[in-house]
Amino acid sequence: MNSCPVNFTLEKRCKRSLARAGIIHTPHGPITTPAFVVVGTKGTVKSVKVDDMEKYVGNQVALANTYHLFLQPGSDLIEEAGGLGKFMNWVGPTMTDSGGFQVFSLGAAFGKGVTKFAKDATADADGSSLNVYSKELASQHGKLCVIDEDGVTFTSHLDGSMHRFTPERSIEVQHQIGADIIVAFDECTSPTVDRDYQKEAMDRTHRWAKRSIMAHKNNYSALKNQGLYGVVQGGRHLDLRKESACTLAKMDFDGFAIGGSFSKSDLGESLEVVNQILPEEKPRHLLGIGEPEDILAGVLNGCDTFDCVAPTRLGRTGTLYVNTGSVNNFGLPVYEKINILNQKFIHDHSNFDFSESPIGTQYTKAYLAHLFRAKEMLGPHLASLHNLWTIVNYTKAIRTKILNDE
Amino acid sequence: MNSCPVNFTLEKRCKRSLARAGIIHTPHGPITTPAFVVVGTKGTVKSVKVDDMEKYVGNQVALANTYHLFLQPGSDLIEEAGGLGKFMNWVGPTMTDSGGFQVFSLGAAFGKGVTKFAKDATADADGSSLNVYSKELASQHGKLCVIDEDGVTFTSHLDGSMHRFTPERSIEVQHQIGADIIVAFDECTSPTVDRDYQKEAMDRTHRWAKRSIMAHKNNYSALKNQGLYGVVQGGRHLDLRKESACTLAKMDFDGFAIGGSFSKSDLGESLEVVNQILPEEKPRHLLGIGEPEDILAGVLNGCDTFDCVAPTRLGRTGTLYVNTGSVNNFGLPVYEKINILNQKFIHDHSNFDFSESPIGTQYTKAYLAHLFRAKEMLGPHLASLHNLWTIVNYTKAIRTKILNDE
Repeated sequence: MNSCPVNFTLEKRCKRSLARAGIIHTPHGPITTPAFVVVGTKGTVKSVKVDDMEKYVGNQVALANTYHLFLQPGSDLIEEAGGLGKFMNWVGPTMTDSGGFQVFSLGAAFGKGVTKFAKDATADADGSSLNVYSKELASQHGKLCVIDEDGVTFTSHLDGSMHRFTPERSIEVQHQIGADIIVAFDECTSPTVDRDYQKEAMDRTHRWAKRSIMAHKNNYSALKNQGLYGVVQGGRHLDLRKESACTLAKMDFDGFAIGGSFSKSDLGESLEVVNQILPEEKPRHLLGIGEPEDILAGVLNGCDTFDCVAPTRLGRTGTLYVNTGSVNNFGLPVYEKINILNQKFIHDHSNFDFSESPIGTQYTKAYLAHLFRAKEMLGPHLASLHNLWTIVNYTKAIRTKILNDE
Repeated sequence: MNSCPVNFTLEKRCKRSLARAGIIHTPHGPITTPAFVVVGTKGTVKSVKVDDMEKYVGNQVALANTYHLFLQPGSDLIEEAGGLGKFMNWVGPTMTDSGGFQVFSLGAAFGKGVTKFAKDATADADGSSLNVYSKELASQHGKLCVIDEDGVTFTSHLDGSMHRFTPERSIEVQHQIGADIIVAFDECTSPTVDRDYQKEAMDRTHRWAKRSIMAHKNNYSALKNQGLYGVVQGGRHLDLRKESACTLAKMDFDGFAIGGSFSKSDLGESLEVVNQILPEEKPRHLLGIGEPEDILAGVLNGCDTFDCVAPTRLGRTGTLYVNTGSVNNFGLPVYEKINILNQKFIHDHSNFDFSESPIGTQYTKAYLAHLFRAKEMLGPHLASLHNLWTIVNYTKAIRTKILNDE
């Protein structure tokens, strides 16, 4: 057994920012970074078969959600299948998250419209009295997610059954699922909670991080070959982010994930603070963020990998990233989002991408407009492939710029 | 302009049956027969992009429905796009049906569970008093489909708007859609109507056939390049089938479609009667029938091409054609249908096809069972591809047998 199944090779460091290019070596092959990780929540990138990933998306790695797979079809079934990759027929590297974010978003925050980004600068003040984890509040919308020092008790969004995740249980479940990169159990806080709660949750996440490492090492089967990432938290408070990075940097993780909430405006600053502290020789993943401008901010501030459901979620509702033909200060393409259901596309017989998207250069806006209006499955499929290709290849273009000193 | 855009070359005639192998030459390339035509009702084979057709299905030709395209997105929009093939990005041959079957099945028969096959031998007697085209009956379920000598008035299943198809209008719409092979407007009767009505409808279909030919020739743009098929009707009455074939055989069609209702037991006999009369030098298409045993019966009794929504419709609900490993008297594979939602497949980690299906040999039953239970789009997509491949390649296998004198 390799004592360190996930390693990072730093290929190039940018002189004017924290941006860097590298290679994450995993048991299922290398990931050249910066890289976008496609999300396959339930062990499937929605509508996309593995051959399509290879031909139309070009991703190197896929991430599945521990919470979802635990509930359906069950992590034991995936272990029985030979692990996540074999189950979904994907030969490349895989990741799972810890389940912390889903326990939060599908538990207490369900239906609240809470995202990882604070709505505006005053959200903190407006929402300061809101502790989304309180049992009282949770019960108001029929969901239950109670956090204690030992772990989280939550109800399934599928059938209301009660479950419990502890750091040890999350690691056990992730061992069963068997992805190359797994993540320590953390508490993902809402951007609306106050500083005291952010601090309390962060400290707990640090204690859980230690327990996750212990659980990983103690129960680590010789047959497994998985790297463990720790999760930096701290919400929108730079001092907490700094403290979290310092604490985790000292722990024996194979890499780091950066979780929790940000505001759009200070995303870069938060990441800069964190990545100046995290050890340079280990990979850094920014959890759940994937708009082009956010990926660029992430790379400029030292992040290596990114994941987000946006490309497929937007695609399913007919929203497409479209290359405007303009480039930004870094010479990277500027994208706009169009909704193909807009009246003006009904008679637009031009392709929906003029550049290189293998789907967008084949199909017209009028055809896609028809598919979405007729509620044909092919519409979401083509839109998802195009959006995934766009974000994956945008991130690859950033990598090329770094390697070429641009 | 080729005066005869659709031609048939007879390659081989079977000695012991009406089975034959041939090539239908169309403006968008050849179709080697017997062949299964995949159905793309609304200009899209459900969930299947054209590259998937090439790589995973292997079909040579696709059929779209005139009624559906007329209502959405409109045949004028498809003409504007450069025709059906360009609109859906498919470079191969295309067909459209006349709209007659849909006017019936989505009009008067909507929600009645009426199919092209009579349920059993007594259906005729049981249902003899039912004239599904009567205005009174139609209005009971909020649908309207009134047939007169000149054409059919019907309401859209989408928005209830009123429309009218005549033979001339159907041909005009099909000229706009621009498929290689188009079909004369016909009245498709229910298996439950009595003999008198079958005769009346058949005679009307023959008069409409003449008008369809006239409309095709008189309005035929030099830019168009389309072959016209006439439709043999007559329901389950051999004498009517014979009469219909004799009448149509004398008309100047480029090929023939065989429509209407059958009973499972006498399908072969009906087709034999018809195809002994239809001219040998023209292609024959069996409309809307596509189970393996029915395709075999169709080929043995002289049909060249087949279309059916079954492979994709079954696929979307989790029903898969599975190769049993046995062969029939002709050395052709025997398939059974399994429903992947059956409990026993949850832990079945074997591939869902052991033979050659490019999808079935990649993915496991347990994975597909998970996708369908989790309501993931990838499930219907993979199942549709596999079922289409199965039927397309089963029909190709029949062709090989004919060519090899087996």
